Amino acid sequence: MELIVGGGIVGLSVAWRLSRAGRAVTVVDPAPASGASHAAAGMLAPVSEVSYTEEPLLRLGVASLRRWPSFAAELAADAGLPPGVLAPSPGSSGAPSYGVDFRADGTLDVAFGADDLAALDELAAFMGKLGLPVERLTGRECRRLEPMLAPSVRGGLLAPGDAWVDPRRVTSALLAALERRGVPVVRARVSRLLRASEGPGDGAVVGVELAAAAGGGAVPAEIQADGVVLAAGVWSAELAGVPVRPVKGQIMRLRSAEPLLSRCVRGVVHGAPVYLVPRGDGELVVGATQEELGFDTRVTAGGLYELLRDARELVPGVTELEVAEVVAGLRPGTPDNLPLIGPSGTPGLTLATGHHRGGVLLAPLTAALLQGEEPELAALCSPARHHPVPGPQGFGGLPYDKTSGSEEMG
Amino acid sequence: MELIVGGGIVGLSVAWRLSRAGRAVTVVDPAPASGASHAAAGMLAPVSEVSYTEEPLLRLGVASLRRWPSFAAELAADAGLPPGVLAPSPGSSGAPSYGVDFRADGTLDVAFGADDLAALDELAAFMGKLGLPVERLTGRECRRLEPMLAPSVRGGLLAPGDAWVDPRRVTSALLAALERRGVPVVRARVSRLLRASEGPGDGAVVGVELAAAAGGGAVPAEIQADGVVLAAGVWSAELAGVPVRPVKGQIMRLRSAEPLLSRCVRGVVHGAPVYLVPRGDGELVVGATQEELGFDTRVTAGGLYELLRDARELVPGVTELEVAEVVAGLRPGTPDNLPLIGPSGTPGLTLATGHHRGGVLLAPLTAALLQGEEPELAALCSPARHHPVPGPQGFGGLPYDKTSGSEEMG
Repeated sequence: MELIVGGGIVGLSVAWRLSRAGRAVTVVDPAPASGASHAAAGMLAPVSEVSYTEEPLLRLGVASLRRWPSFAAELAADAGLPPGVLAPSPGSSGAPSYGVDFRADGTLDVAFGADDLAALDELAAFMGKLGLPVERLTGRECRRLEPMLAPSVRGGLLAPGDAWVDPRRVTSALLAALERRGVPVVRARVSRLLRASEGPGDGAVVGVELAAAAGGGAVPAEIQADGVVLAAGVWSAELAGVPVRPVKGQIMRLRSAEPLLSRCVRGVVHGAPVYLVPRGDGELVVGATQEELGFDTRVTAGGLYELLRDARELVPGVTELEVAEVVAGLRPGTPDNLPLIGPSGTPGLTLATGHHRGGVLLAPLTAALLQGEEPELAALCSPARHHPVPGPQGFGGLPYDKTSGSEEMG
Repeated sequence: MELIVGGGIVGLSVAWRLSRAGRAVTVVDPAPASGASHAAAGMLAPVSEVSYTEEPLLRLGVASLRRWPSFAAELAADAGLPPGVLAPSPGSSGAPSYGVDFRADGTLDVAFGADDLAALDELAAFMGKLGLPVERLTGRECRRLEPMLAPSVRGGLLAPGDAWVDPRRVTSALLAALERRGVPVVRARVSRLLRASEGPGDGAVVGVELAAAAGGGAVPAEIQADGVVLAAGVWSAELAGVPVRPVKGQIMRLRSAEPLLSRCVRGVVHGAPVYLVPRGDGELVVGATQEELGFDTRVTAGGLYELLRDARELVPGVTELEVAEVVAGLRPGTPDNLPLIGPSGTPGLTLATGHHRGGVLLAPLTAALLQGEEPELAALCSPARHHPVPGPQGFGGLPYDKTSGSEEMG
């Protein structure tokens, strides 16, 4: 039996795909679907304003986006939901949401000043070179697509193939699909990895030890497994010394009677990227701060202020909307911004973590890579490129590579 | 038995004082202490930046502030709480809170620009003329008192006699005191006032009809009473055609490990007044918008944005604080900004409503006026000055005074 440690969108996706492939799996998480996946906006936009120069990450994103339509459709079917809106369609905007609210109506990046416009031109050229569909628009054309955009928007870039999804619907659907498949989801916290201490498998991970349940409920002391997949996001660091660090994101959900936007809109305001993601149910998600403050998930006055200020600059009409929720999550950042997917170097332990801002986008690809698909992309994500810091909970016996950047992980 | 309709800070205060005076009382409210009192910041500052030219209102505020220390102390005693911090004292800042968190460490009004400074000078002169204690300060002196103030603060006005209180502690204490005194608090919604339809008391209010409980619980169909005191805030309009209108206020509670301020700080930023009220438990309350949008209690992106923007200008350090809560309430505004306290003109019906921004400040005075104290001040609040709009639920038979400004009540 494979044990998946972590019930976020990555862990649940891996569990679901492995189960569909006929493997026996179990998931363990103290509170599934409540971490970064719960906070995430759900943009499926491989080319982002901050990562477009990172070609390996872009390749992963494009490959995973390609998988999303069938992933969403199969998931909806497995979970017993009606199918989602699966293809780009002008009529899908503002339509009632289905399935996991997958929509492929594109992302519009907008620019206010001359510098931003030049950056859009560069981005367009880069995407063109890679053969990705892209359209350069004037300010007027942007407002024709999205009439609520600020009059100060001077130009834009439409990525018509981009999509988005509601991560909360995805994780609910994954939990429902796992339940229908009979996959156990153990609500417990893993206190440490169990290792084989004697014999030929010395040091191999053979299961996990569980912390006692807070409510005194019936939780086993440990779970034995043939293999452990560590998909615990930013908490992977303390379990196995994996080089991931918390990158806090604060996000806001606004409620709107009429949809304000029909696609994702993104822009750089005051030097910080801000995006607005419309939901099928009329919600508008505004994200997200990027803060490196350790394990801090407080929603702060400053974080909210920046989100509100920047969202207003993009779409002044947001001021009329009701604030439905504010929440913060911790993205698992890695030294090179690429995820850690594959064999850890320790027998019995596989990694599926370090997805940073890309957990939702990369979930389908992550599950596929762990099943041996697309070996060329798998090589980009191989944990072998980082040798984890040795320590009380680190991998025993692996050399410490001083050039790998792992110092900054502490 | 006197029936108090409305379990906000005004209704509960009236009920408590009447009960202490030996009268039989009952309170009826579907959700006591959940309306404007729940949202209120609790500043007890009679001279405010928007009302200082309104001398009658100022006189009411000064008289009620004078009553607050003994009101708070007696309330704490009656509710079985330890006494509050009752006197101005330099050492009380940041101290653990007691009782109803009454603190009298003053209000500091600050100014950024030349116009604001001139307004402070006028305010100081006005207060001096009325014999109210006040101190004009330089920007440096302001920052000496409150080191977290923005460097751009150029001057201030200290009203050392001003105080504040935690309205939620006050209403909890009032409910506890009522319970200890055996005063019934009926959780039900009043659907209409009952009137004597025959005989000499024709048209007199003789009780209330109650709406069926939502949960199907045991609620009587009506309550007969010797007299009804209408203290239902903005909902007084629909019950008796009282000329009150909803003035929405959005407010934010920030959480701070260390107190950022030791007294109330207020300023006019971008033309709108903003205030920061420190709580004994480390909370910092930021208020409040003033919006006339009908019965709308949504927290909006625009409202939050303004509060955050203006609070940052006053005290930049607020950006680090956690957002604990955002909430909106409806103040009952009147055409002349003065409350409606006293006989309504209809036999059996007394009013205690229309307190607008002053419900917390004026609660002790309101209770006293209804017991016949300070007749000169009572005259200022007499409902006779407004003749309510006649209508299906209006007072029968009273003339409609076209000069009273009641047109704007609709």
